Amino acid sequence: MPDLTLPFFRTCLTRLPAPFADAIAGAEARNGQLTKPPGALGRLEVIAIWLAGWQGTDRPRITAPQIAIFAGNHGVVAKGVSAFPAEVTGQMVANFAHGGAAINQLARNAGAKLTVEALELDRPTLDFSEASAMSEAELEIALAVGWNALETATDLLAVGEMGIGNTTSAAAISAALFGGTGADWVGRGTGVDAAGLVRKAAVVQQALDLHSGHFADPMEVLRRLGGREVAAMTGAILAARMARVPVLLDGFIASAAAAILFRAAPGALDHVLAAHASAEAAHGKLLAAMGKEPLLALGLRLGEGSGAALAIPLVRAAAACHSGMATFAEAGVAGG
Amino acid sequence: MPDLTLPFFRTCLTRLPAPFADAIAGAEARNGQLTKPPGALGRLEVIAIWLAGWQGTDRPRITAPQIAIFAGNHGVVAKGVSAFPAEVTGQMVANFAHGGAAINQLARNAGAKLTVEALELDRPTLDFSEASAMSEAELEIALAVGWNALETATDLLAVGEMGIGNTTSAAAISAALFGGTGADWVGRGTGVDAAGLVRKAAVVQQALDLHSGHFADPMEVLRRLGGREVAAMTGAILAARMARVPVLLDGFIASAAAAILFRAAPGALDHVLAAHASAEAAHGKLLAAMGKEPLLALGLRLGEGSGAALAIPLVRAAAACHSGMATFAEAGVAGG
Repeated sequence: MPDLTLPFFRTCLTRLPAPFADAIAGAEARNGQLTKPPGALGRLEVIAIWLAGWQGTDRPRITAPQIAIFAGNHGVVAKGVSAFPAEVTGQMVANFAHGGAAINQLARNAGAKLTVEALELDRPTLDFSEASAMSEAELEIALAVGWNALETATDLLAVGEMGIGNTTSAAAISAALFGGTGADWVGRGTGVDAAGLVRKAAVVQQALDLHSGHFADPMEVLRRLGGREVAAMTGAILAARMARVPVLLDGFIASAAAAILFRAAPGALDHVLAAHASAEAAHGKLLAAMGKEPLLALGLRLGEGSGAALAIPLVRAAAACHSGMATFAEAGVAGG
Repeated sequence: MPDLTLPFFRTCLTRLPAPFADAIAGAEARNGQLTKPPGALGRLEVIAIWLAGWQGTDRPRITAPQIAIFAGNHGVVAKGVSAFPAEVTGQMVANFAHGGAAINQLARNAGAKLTVEALELDRPTLDFSEASAMSEAELEIALAVGWNALETATDLLAVGEMGIGNTTSAAAISAALFGGTGADWVGRGTGVDAAGLVRKAAVVQQALDLHSGHFADPMEVLRRLGGREVAAMTGAILAARMARVPVLLDGFIASAAAAILFRAAPGALDHVLAAHASAEAAHGKLLAAMGKEPLLALGLRLGEGSGAALAIPLVRAAAACHSGMATFAEAGVAGG
């Protein structure tokens, strides 16, 4: 068990494991022999071969998907950036516990285990438009919560969040990592009105001005502009990579958490798929900046890992087709 | 049990049941009380309310999805329009029976029952570029096979096919119903080469010229240009409508089968969702002509109901969220 310090997480980023090339080659060969016209399963074929690389087998399977949700509260909510009060974060965590949220239904529907980590909800991060959101110690703990959330049996990790105000944090992180103004990266979130949207853009811009000069180090961007649940997602995605577990990103905030890794090390998100394009305007821009094409586009803007949960059956289907289909020779079908 | 004659099917088209307005109103009211920001589940909310209307309850559920596959052979294959020989239709039906095809894996992944009807594979339809594909008696039997394929317990019907040469039939049907030339509606199908594509366009155009003057009656278009599996899909989609069972269309050929109903009666496809946009070029054009927006776009071009099967978990998820989530009042969450 490693000591989960910031230096440890930084070291991981220099030692990212690659997928298994021989499994990819084996899966590509098998794909060419399956009873279907070449390429006829479209993106499912690409996903199956990608899974093969990370699982180290030419017959990948998804049998134990996990949906990991992280919740945190944000000091920046005091600036009026959300349509909902901060109390809703904790109320929704209780709703998760009682099985009443969308993600409970979606986890059951996907046959996935749901885990929820609430990170010090009664101690919001500082308002990042006026100070750094977290200390180094707080960042370290949040990253470790995410790292530890990945369960040993998990073979596909869907990552999501709950945190009133966290689209504001995601917008600030995106701007810090990829450039642009506050207005370029803010959106309606859970449904803020026009005046709220203007406030949100101004608050993000104020934060960008305050923290400018510290954007070259993505972990420092995360400490200054992130939230505990955002950092936990970053930690979970990194833990999955070190264990070669494929990851499904949920929406804008999960993608911002992943973007920290994307900016920190080349290829750090090679084990990651974007599950869906959220209705939050900046999400598409962020995914494009990371070269990720979403699997679904159903206009969701809920968070909670909902979009990632919806994509689990698609990834499992890709593996099932690849590993379960007969070859032309086995089935006695002409044309192979 | 009705007498499954052509006049019966035509009468159905004049007596299409509507969704239950009170269930739609009840579902809309419930949707506004669920623990999520308004509209945050995007298209899932629209689907849940649509399901409510057809199921006649404000708490729709999908518990018994059925994937119905129909197989047929086409005389037009003699014109060199396919990359695979006609024998493959029967070989793939055997592959379905042994569980080796993509759709077997996808049905299991979706928790759906798979039914396969092979329609007189050793008696292909006539080459529709030289004659009518079917007699009235043959059309009637094919429609009845589809009608009877819908099982009593089914609460969501995914419709697909297998039939070497049937993208050529779908192209001819599309052109006859919506206008345009053969070249406007043909594509690579299972992977025909450039010369094959030119042949395919010419064959479709020859058929359009031969049968022109008979395109005002969609059932007559189906008899002249369809195939047995195409007509069976038309019959299955109509049977589902009469039983108020929602339908997921697979790709280009299933959509052409549905287009017969679309052209025959206003609102005939109100119980139908397009599951995916296939890689076959004309599919998008056909869906647009029918006002259907596909749920998925993963570049599939396999048939077998594969795209429809992939969408089953999405539709079930929509129902599960709507019917299983807590309301703001139940969960004690602020903001409802």
